Amino acid sequence: MEKIQWNYKTPGIPDRLFVRGKVPMTKEEVRAVTISKLRLQEDSVVLDIGAGTGSIAIEAAHICRQGKVIAIERNIEGIQLIQQNCHRFQVELDIRHGNGAELLETIDSFDRVVVGGSGGELKEILTLCHQKLRDEGIVVVNAVTIETLYEATQFMRECGYQDVEVISLQTARGKQLRKYTLMEALNPIYIISGSKGQGLVQEEER
Amino acid sequence: MEKIQWNYKTPGIPDRLFVRGKVPMTKEEVRAVTISKLRLQEDSVVLDIGAGTGSIAIEAAHICRQGKVIAIERNIEGIQLIQQNCHRFQVELDIRHGNGAELLETIDSFDRVVVGGSGGELKEILTLCHQKLRDEGIVVVNAVTIETLYEATQFMRECGYQDVEVISLQTARGKQLRKYTLMEALNPIYIISGSKGQGLVQEEER
Amino acid sequence: MEKIQWNYKTPGIPDRLFVRGKVPMTKEEVRAVTISKLRLQEDSVVLDIGAGTGSIAIEAAHICRQGKVIAIERNIEGIQLIQQNCHRFQVELDIRHGNGAELLETIDSFDRVVVGGSGGELKEILTLCHQKLRDEGIVVVNAVTIETLYEATQFMRECGYQDVEVISLQTARGKQLRKYTLMEALNPIYIISGSKGQGLVQEEER
Amino acid sequence: MEKIQWNYKTPGIPDRLFVRGKVPMTKEEVRAVTISKLRLQEDSVVLDIGAGTGSIAIEAAHICRQGKVIAIERNIEGIQLIQQNCHRFQVELDIRHGNGAELLETIDSFDRVVVGGSGGELKEILTLCHQKLRDEGIVVVNAVTIETLYEATQFMRECGYQDVEVISLQTARGKQLRKYTLMEALNPIYIISGSKGQGLVQEEER
Repeated sequence: MEKIQWNYKTPGIPDRLFVRGKVPMTKEEVRAVTISKLRLQEDSVVLDIGAGTGSIAIEAAHICRQGKVIAIERNIEGIQLIQQNCHRFQVELDIRHGNGAELLETIDSFDRVVVGGSGGELKEILTLCHQKLRDEGIVVVNAVTIETLYEATQFMRECGYQDVEVISLQTARGKQLRKYTLMEALNPIYIISGSKGQGLVQEEER
Repeated sequence: MEKIQWNYKTPGIPDRLFVRGKVPMTKEEVRAVTISKLRLQEDSVVLDIGAGTGSIAIEAAHICRQGKVIAIERNIEGIQLIQQNCHRFQVELDIRHGNGAELLETIDSFDRVVVGGSGGELKEILTLCHQKLRDEGIVVVNAVTIETLYEATQFMRECGYQDVEVISLQTARGKQLRKYTLMEALNPIYIISGSKGQGLVQEEER
Repeated sequence: MEKIQWNYKTPGIPDRLFVRGKVPMTKEEVRAVTISKLRLQEDSVVLDIGAGTGSIAIEAAHICRQGKVIAIERNIEGIQLIQQNCHRFQVELDIRHGNGAELLETIDSFDRVVVGGSGGELKEILTLCHQKLRDEGIVVVNAVTIETLYEATQFMRECGYQDVEVISLQTARGKQLRKYTLMEALNPIYIISGSKGQGLVQEEER
Repeated sequence: MEKIQWNYKTPGIPDRLFVRGKVPMTKEEVRAVTISKLRLQEDSVVLDIGAGTGSIAIEAAHICRQGKVIAIERNIEGIQLIQQNCHRFQVELDIRHGNGAELLETIDSFDRVVVGGSGGELKEILTLCHQKLRDEGIVVVNAVTIETLYEATQFMRECGYQDVEVISLQTARGKQLRKYTLMEALNPIYIISGSKGQGLVQEEER
């Protein structure tokens, strides 16, 4: 692993700087929107379930400097990538290897949770998250399937979450071919988010 | 203007918290991706040309705490909104009222520039930005028209910018209608970015 | 109502030529894809449930010259628009005013059905359609909500439909503003289709 | 080559029924919209420049039964695919092998032209098409690059075309993975169209 020159602890790490292996990675445009929806605070305790390469967890850790980020991943190759990326971007994460639902039992409480992968156990994971999420806490689900999109949306409505948002994002990136810029699509992603309790903003002007 | 409870100096301010008037506003998903492409550092000097309501400039200022953000807007209503939003989010911007190309003459140099509106003078503005942008500086253009998309892309290629990226972003937001979630589209936006000189990342593993 | 010069009985009637009222209308790009997914034959008997302005039914009738198109619409204003559009485009439709589920009871059988609106009774309508649809018949659902998208997809999978396709379509249209082309988004639409029985194509090279 | 059972001469041939080789193929959703924008008539003489696998030309030929469709392709592998697909779908095309601009010199006049590929000679091709296109004729350009999108739009505006339309289309298709439907994006396509002379519709109600 060569050294790279990237020692900014600010948002917007280019995708190509992460060690990636064959693990699917949240693309930087999706990462930016996901982190935006998390409405992180400096002292937030954040849980990233299905952390993949750790890219979201690492950018979250740059923001939550007085908080803590826990990255859960059940794929051992993913765990190694997260460790490598932590080293590369000089970030400390609490990395835990295992199944999301099982590991959730061992975690006390948190302010934010992002579900990037649920291994087919979305409902169990969201239910456990709901129990352990602090009041005014925020859940963000990144979905790539119709079923996860639907189930996450239903779950948040049924639990009476505030500020439920359902976003679909279609990104295309230009690839240079001689004098041309060929637009290539990334797969669409659905970002479902909501806030437990009264929501982050209690009093506002409309 | 009522008071709102939002005193986080972190990314992800919800759109509805900004004072907006009738000025077009960069939506929060686009804002997040734009700021990501700016690859801001804590000490960056940032220029926002066509700042609108100031939403990008304000989030940039939260990140660039040892730097400085200059917001240029030629619409006087916009200037007032930027001031109100600065007050609301407790941020200090260097706000300048006037034409982008003219005001650029008065500015020394900067590390980052985002062009949200060019008033039909894109080429002049990009040329001036190019002259004043520091080496390894980054330009980001948010385009809503085919012509701005094309011209910004051409400009960056012709100037030999590094890491030129052309992104198209189509966002839709779910609107709750009884038990249904109706997906409503935001207009597509094109985000063109590039880095002067050798680019931010000089040495890297591929 | 002025007369217009459009007497082609071929695909691609421009949206602006339809009498539209305030009834939501399937946009021509969506209409084209929907009709494509219907895989119409010249002698098909086609049902259009929630026909709106009749635009899909009218283009289907241009293709199914030895068949028949039945247009169901529960909104009386819609019925009048369908009649006006039939007159305008010289097409004969079997127009029926009323609730989709109830009217389905009165219809014998058909080869194709497109569900453009279900008035909250999607499951009942799809179940009735399934009973009355001929073997190798095709169902196409146009959905604008997450819930309809999910339920239509689930229904087709549970009924063992062949060639189930789930398509999302995001269209933007350029609007000329002086020398600029501003891209304006249409709302995303989801087109779910499937074939009863063995599907249209029984034997093929892969 | 096995025989397939598809003898409908109607719109909506599924992509997988075409013999495809390694030649890029216009996807069926894009094909449907492209044909819609061509506003074909039964007696239209249609030119397809960069015909690829012939999928657009073949569907056009199904509609223009009293007209004629000329398919130009410079890739010899493409020519063979077009011939195979003509045989498969029982259609007669006038197939010409060679460079678009050169072959255009040999063609008298036509009512419709679709440019699917221009081999870097878009301007020459559009200029020649403009000369040979009959009054009220229609040009449709399918673009996958920013540069073709821009140049085609500019060309049509500069030539004073009527009803200039610029459409961007982002399609995603669901892929079944066990009980999930994973949405996979197709690359975005831009469809630019316009009508020479006064346009197809001379008199209309607005």
